[in-house]
Amino acid sequence: MKMHGIGASNGIAVSKVLILKEETTKISNNKVEEKNLNSEINKVDIAIVQVKNDLEKLVVTTREKLGDEHAAIFEAHLSILADPELYQQIKSLINDEKWNAAKAVELACDSFYQIFSSLDDEYLRERAADILDIKTKLLNQILGIKDNFLSEIKEEVIIVANDLTPSQTSQLNPKFVKGFLCNIGGRTSHSAIMARSLGIPAIVGLKNITTQVQNNEYVALNGSSGLVELNLSTEEVNKWKHQEKSWVNLKAELTSFKGKKTITKDNYEFKLEANVGSSKDLDSAIENDAQGIGLFRTEFLYMENTDFPTEEEQFNEYKIALEKMHPYKVVIRTLDIGGDKKLSYWDLPHELNPFLGYRAIRLCLDQKDIFRTQIRALLRASVYGQLGIMFPMIATVEEFKEAKAFVLQCKEELIKEGQKVSDNVQIGMMIEIPSSAVNAHIFSKYADFFSIGTNDLIQYSLAADRMSEKVSYLYQPYHPAVLRLIKMTIDGAKVHEKKIPVGMCGEMAGDSIAAPLLVGMGLDEFSMSASDILSTRKLINSLSKKDMELLVEQALACETHEEVEKLVTDKLNQILN
Amino acid sequence: MKMHGIGASNGIAVSKVLILKEETTKISNNKVEEKNLNSEINKVDIAIVQVKNDLEKLVVTTREKLGDEHAAIFEAHLSILADPELYQQIKSLINDEKWNAAKAVELACDSFYQIFSSLDDEYLRERAADILDIKTKLLNQILGIKDNFLSEIKEEVIIVANDLTPSQTSQLNPKFVKGFLCNIGGRTSHSAIMARSLGIPAIVGLKNITTQVQNNEYVALNGSSGLVELNLSTEEVNKWKHQEKSWVNLKAELTSFKGKKTITKDNYEFKLEANVGSSKDLDSAIENDAQGIGLFRTEFLYMENTDFPTEEEQFNEYKIALEKMHPYKVVIRTLDIGGDKKLSYWDLPHELNPFLGYRAIRLCLDQKDIFRTQIRALLRASVYGQLGIMFPMIATVEEFKEAKAFVLQCKEELIKEGQKVSDNVQIGMMIEIPSSAVNAHIFSKYADFFSIGTNDLIQYSLAADRMSEKVSYLYQPYHPAVLRLIKMTIDGAKVHEKKIPVGMCGEMAGDSIAAPLLVGMGLDEFSMSASDILSTRKLINSLSKKDMELLVEQALACETHEEVEKLVTDKLNQILN
Repeated sequence: MKMHGIGASNGIAVSKVLILKEETTKISNNKVEEKNLNSEINKVDIAIVQVKNDLEKLVVTTREKLGDEHAAIFEAHLSILADPELYQQIKSLINDEKWNAAKAVELACDSFYQIFSSLDDEYLRERAADILDIKTKLLNQILGIKDNFLSEIKEEVIIVANDLTPSQTSQLNPKFVKGFLCNIGGRTSHSAIMARSLGIPAIVGLKNITTQVQNNEYVALNGSSGLVELNLSTEEVNKWKHQEKSWVNLKAELTSFKGKKTITKDNYEFKLEANVGSSKDLDSAIENDAQGIGLFRTEFLYMENTDFPTEEEQFNEYKIALEKMHPYKVVIRTLDIGGDKKLSYWDLPHELNPFLGYRAIRLCLDQKDIFRTQIRALLRASVYGQLGIMFPMIATVEEFKEAKAFVLQCKEELIKEGQKVSDNVQIGMMIEIPSSAVNAHIFSKYADFFSIGTNDLIQYSLAADRMSEKVSYLYQPYHPAVLRLIKMTIDGAKVHEKKIPVGMCGEMAGDSIAAPLLVGMGLDEFSMSASDILSTRKLINSLSKKDMELLVEQALACETHEEVEKLVTDKLNQILN
Repeated sequence: MKMHGIGASNGIAVSKVLILKEETTKISNNKVEEKNLNSEINKVDIAIVQVKNDLEKLVVTTREKLGDEHAAIFEAHLSILADPELYQQIKSLINDEKWNAAKAVELACDSFYQIFSSLDDEYLRERAADILDIKTKLLNQILGIKDNFLSEIKEEVIIVANDLTPSQTSQLNPKFVKGFLCNIGGRTSHSAIMARSLGIPAIVGLKNITTQVQNNEYVALNGSSGLVELNLSTEEVNKWKHQEKSWVNLKAELTSFKGKKTITKDNYEFKLEANVGSSKDLDSAIENDAQGIGLFRTEFLYMENTDFPTEEEQFNEYKIALEKMHPYKVVIRTLDIGGDKKLSYWDLPHELNPFLGYRAIRLCLDQKDIFRTQIRALLRASVYGQLGIMFPMIATVEEFKEAKAFVLQCKEELIKEGQKVSDNVQIGMMIEIPSSAVNAHIFSKYADFFSIGTNDLIQYSLAADRMSEKVSYLYQPYHPAVLRLIKMTIDGAKVHEKKIPVGMCGEMAGDSIAAPLLVGMGLDEFSMSASDILSTRKLINSLSKKDMELLVEQALACETHEEVEKLVTDKLNQILN
């Protein structure tokens, strides 16, 4: 039997199932007598201290094992644990409503969970999972339940669970845990990100996998395609073992691509870069041999704060990135807020269709004070490396000219103040709105570089919100019209003498079907998740650009997304086998 | 001093101001003694009967003067007046809360108004204005206020008001009322539609015009551009009088274009058609010499009902349209619901970005039972004229093929049932999604015709919701990329041997800047508001297609919307003067 879920971490695994039972901790509904209230509060206090200790240890071990980025998850847990509102609520449930310690913790955490999980913002919604993680930890302490079960696994298994918390995922030992499968979760949940760093293949969003398997039966999974096969015969197990081995070999082979050029068989060179969300992600980019940062998102800097980050805070963050990546280029995208990304401290107008609304550069050009702080921080940081400033959501030439002029004006102001600003800052734009792709040949007169944002470009070109379950089938990266718009962008970048470079920072750049076509179209820079860089290098190094140019012609003549996918898959099978 | 508003009805006027004071009817807050309650209810009953009589008369006179479409407004008022819920609420305010008759009417109508005006749906929101109209009528009856003031105007004036109700507008005599200016309102409000039918120039949405003018001062207005000039000197009045005269002459001249061909000076012929919302609009289409219906919207048939219209109801409506327009073609668009258009009796999933969501053909292909009823009604009506069936929001070739196959399947079923279906039904699609414009050359293999929906195409191409006040400046019909997408569509329609016809049913088709460019691109059919047909014919008949082809080349080389607008305006000035 086959099931399909969301591929959360690439790789192939086949092994016996170990079902992680949901800890249906029995929590008593008993109320507490007045005289015992203090002792219940005492239990909570002790649990908090113990969980705090555990988390502090987890921060240290996770930092060693997985780096700053993942350690930060548990730092966030620590700050939730220290939240006085949460503590007050627990205390009041005991003192005023006479609940026992465990029940009070459960009720308070659940109410916090409700608030977070009902938020529109995806980032904050995922913090809801953190709260459940903390709740479990506190309850385990209060009720004396041991939870280091996962770190004690000493035989090869594939874990099947309703969900894995970040704490649980961090305990997994890749030597024994070959993969995991969850009912819920998405590609950007903490556990998924952690699985990728641990190199454990994983599939999430399988809905009811926990009820479909039994302990010790053999299952297999392909984390790239999201495929799970259950109830395998010995023959099937062997077939999958073979695939698993090829994948393990591939992983080892990929390591051999570190330090190599990304160059086609007919000697055309390409640049592979990483997309990052903050300076914490830079280690992973460097580790995976990124030749620069093609997209440094700045919205997390704003979203993780309780107020606008100051010029100084921003300057420090940008400086770290520029220094760390030197001499490679770091393309920093100016604030891309609005749409589905909101700030708690900034009340934006309610809109019927936020994706088609007041967001990104539209908002920054309208609220120059907020924009100024960021541009000043960027320009001040520019002397520490190679900076590219990139504007999101540019739809008209006027917008680009206005934004660029504003940067130059800020530069003048800074120089007057005696600050240093590099003369080498590149000013470019995202191509993510259909009209900008169509008119790329005009924008390329003014921009220093383009970066194609395929996630939005596809949404707008097909008029389909990929977050909307009902129309997500229309999110078609290989739709021939999408390919044509990408080609118009690349061709448009090269019509003037200066031939500006074109990058891509959407998900397509690291996609194995799209990459050959992008090579054929002559995309200069591919920016992607750090973990996809080496496999993309391996792929590109196996191709001939001339062949890919022909493939592009054939793809553009296709009528549907499926036809393009089949065309490229067939071609790759022919080349790679 | 100049002001700018929303041009609601074309034309130029200059005259003395007559300010229509808001009837700040003093309504007593007195409660009524128990013994007098019946007499208050009696007052309401009498007022209702009187208003009902007045409205019935208004239906008859409006039908004679302005046609069925406008008479329907007052028929709608009659049904609101007959609403038992409204009456019950008034009665209960008197019986239970002891309010006097006037106060009870005011409170009940205001509460109904609140409900309607807070609705998302634009159509229903505009019904809120109808309720205010009825409230005023009832109060005037109860309080003995005369309100036939407007019909008694006997000198030339321009009326300045906060708002005009449909009842007030219908009383205006175009002989004396040269124009009107309102603080509030939009292009699609009933008063605006009525003003266009009456041929009275009007500008709405001027915000505070009532406080900017005084009775008897001279003002001038241009209903096309939305410009108002206040406080005119004698010299300025004369200048405007001159323009007004030219416009009056133009109106007369336009009448002379009835029955003529739409043909350029170098003998290329074009077809001008009308967009309609229901069979009630057909009279106006025929009156204005439409050579067919380029867009028959079917959503009003659904929106005005309390349940899905039956096959029989739909069949009757489509039959009327096909018979009435015979031998001209009627292009009927299948249900375009979702997005901003909702049905009270159909609960669709809540979406974050409804414009990018589950709507139109996406929804119909997913819910074939609802689609089947409409397709069957269309096919059965097809024998009564020339039918084109048009699918909205087609984004992929698969969708078009599936929808077309479904029509053919319904046809087979009907024939098996012994029903007659024309063999001449054309099956086409809207081009309103960027990917479909880019890949028009592929769709034209399968579709019998295209119709470009510019309203949506512009929104998606520039990723800007034109309903969102903050980004409505990005709704740029002349953006060079939008023009390029239109050209790709027309060129794409002509690459195969069958060279399918391309129409346009968005607002651009009747726009005097866009039309010359569309002639140059070789658009076949222009479908627009009936009232714009004759002026578009006059314009096209003054152009040379070869010249316009050159103009298109220049327009596509422009960098901005403004440059295109200036280019065409200059060219038209050169041709027309």
